[in-house]
Amino acid sequence: MRYRATLAYNGSAYWGFQRQAGESPTVQKAVEDTLKAMTGQTVTVVAAGRTDTGVHATGQVISFDLVSWSHSPDTLVKALNAHLPPDIRIRDAVEAPGFHPRFDAASRRYRYTVLCAPVADPLRAGLVWWVAHPLDLAVMQAAAAILVGTHDFATFGQPPQGDNTVREVFTSVWAQQPDPWGERYEYVVEATAFLHHQVRRMVGMMVEAGLGRLTPAEFEARFRAADLSQAKRAAPPQGLILEAVRYRD
Amino acid sequence: MRYRATLAYNGSAYWGFQRQAGESPTVQKAVEDTLKAMTGQTVTVVAAGRTDTGVHATGQVISFDLVSWSHSPDTLVKALNAHLPPDIRIRDAVEAPGFHPRFDAASRRYRYTVLCAPVADPLRAGLVWWVAHPLDLAVMQAAAAILVGTHDFATFGQPPQGDNTVREVFTSVWAQQPDPWGERYEYVVEATAFLHHQVRRMVGMMVEAGLGRLTPAEFEARFRAADLSQAKRAAPPQGLILEAVRYRD
Repeated sequence: MRYRATLAYNGSAYWGFQRQAGESPTVQKAVEDTLKAMTGQTVTVVAAGRTDTGVHATGQVISFDLVSWSHSPDTLVKALNAHLPPDIRIRDAVEAPGFHPRFDAASRRYRYTVLCAPVADPLRAGLVWWVAHPLDLAVMQAAAAILVGTHDFATFGQPPQGDNTVREVFTSVWAQQPDPWGERYEYVVEATAFLHHQVRRMVGMMVEAGLGRLTPAEFEARFRAADLSQAKRAAPPQGLILEAVRYRD
Repeated sequence: MRYRATLAYNGSAYWGFQRQAGESPTVQKAVEDTLKAMTGQTVTVVAAGRTDTGVHATGQVISFDLVSWSHSPDTLVKALNAHLPPDIRIRDAVEAPGFHPRFDAASRRYRYTVLCAPVADPLRAGLVWWVAHPLDLAVMQAAAAILVGTHDFATFGQPPQGDNTVREVFTSVWAQQPDPWGERYEYVVEATAFLHHQVRRMVGMMVEAGLGRLTPAEFEARFRAADLSQAKRAAPPQGLILEAVRYRD
């Protein structure tokens, strides 16, 4: 039976989602090792998105096949959470014959959090990007709006082999949220799919604009150039969360 | 010169605030060791509140004396933050001759966060108390209101030697905050001062009431008994934050 599950994790301790050679700690390895310990089966976990080292998820979607699980999916959730490390949690699971988390996905939604304050918040180390200088929200909002639509995103990343760099962005918006520590800016972006490092490179360049180091016109020119050499430094991984994956019904 | 500073820390890695015998990692030791490394002086740091192992702070207030600091307090903040571990931050510092963070304090305010959801949030492990069962907010609010005023709080803690168990509570209120993960309940309590473990024991018993294991009348009877044997299990430390200390002008 194939299962579809929603996965949440704090990526701080992991070298990204995808299993690597050897014993490198990755989220995929942790879930596969747990399933093997629970069921005795060697299981391959497939995910909707391959998050990088230090990137978090609250709505990653995975699938895996179990030959011999004779209990309910809810019992599977409880059993997995009893065995997984506390920085990885299964939120829900259902039986889903034929489901593929990557090929069936219609869109992915990420959230990036910037905390703008004179001093970093030690309670959110590893969870936000701390920026010590003031940001111009209106400039970042204008830059974000430019990214909506079907465009060539080559400035922000390279495609997987055999693919191109055109993606459709449905939502791209910055908002300020109330925060007791400083100015908290959250960027939400939803697209069909993303190039490797695309969200972090987009955020990095929008924050450059917000810091006044790049005008909105310069931001747009670099984006339209569709050339990776135009990218600015990528935003650090810890501010990024894979929040949801949407599927066709 | 005496300095007054506001301190924030993630208490997860520390055995509480107060320096202990030997090399036990405490917040006081980390700050004193940093001041010693920076100035060459052996400095004693005094705090408004001695937080327990795993308890956090965003508004702890400390004082310390420096003989030889020749730069501004703002430069002292920057220099300390450059040398302190990232889970401890100095928010601000001023010169404050004669100031004593504990004796001069008029009140302390703590916040306790309970996250009520079927599955724990791995991004907030160590920062909230995860409760898997539904809580009755109205019952917890009624219990919290009983605690306001000048009362004998012996049910919730023992006094320091030579002191009594009467304290004045100015604010004691639960509120539900919007949260994408589940029901988030935040308890804010401000009082002249607190007995050891008082906030965690109060929260533990209010949550028992919220779970339906204690009626509001039973909660009140245990509180009025002014007897530590009436306490329920203390809430775990990770949900607790020392948020502010108020001083007489």
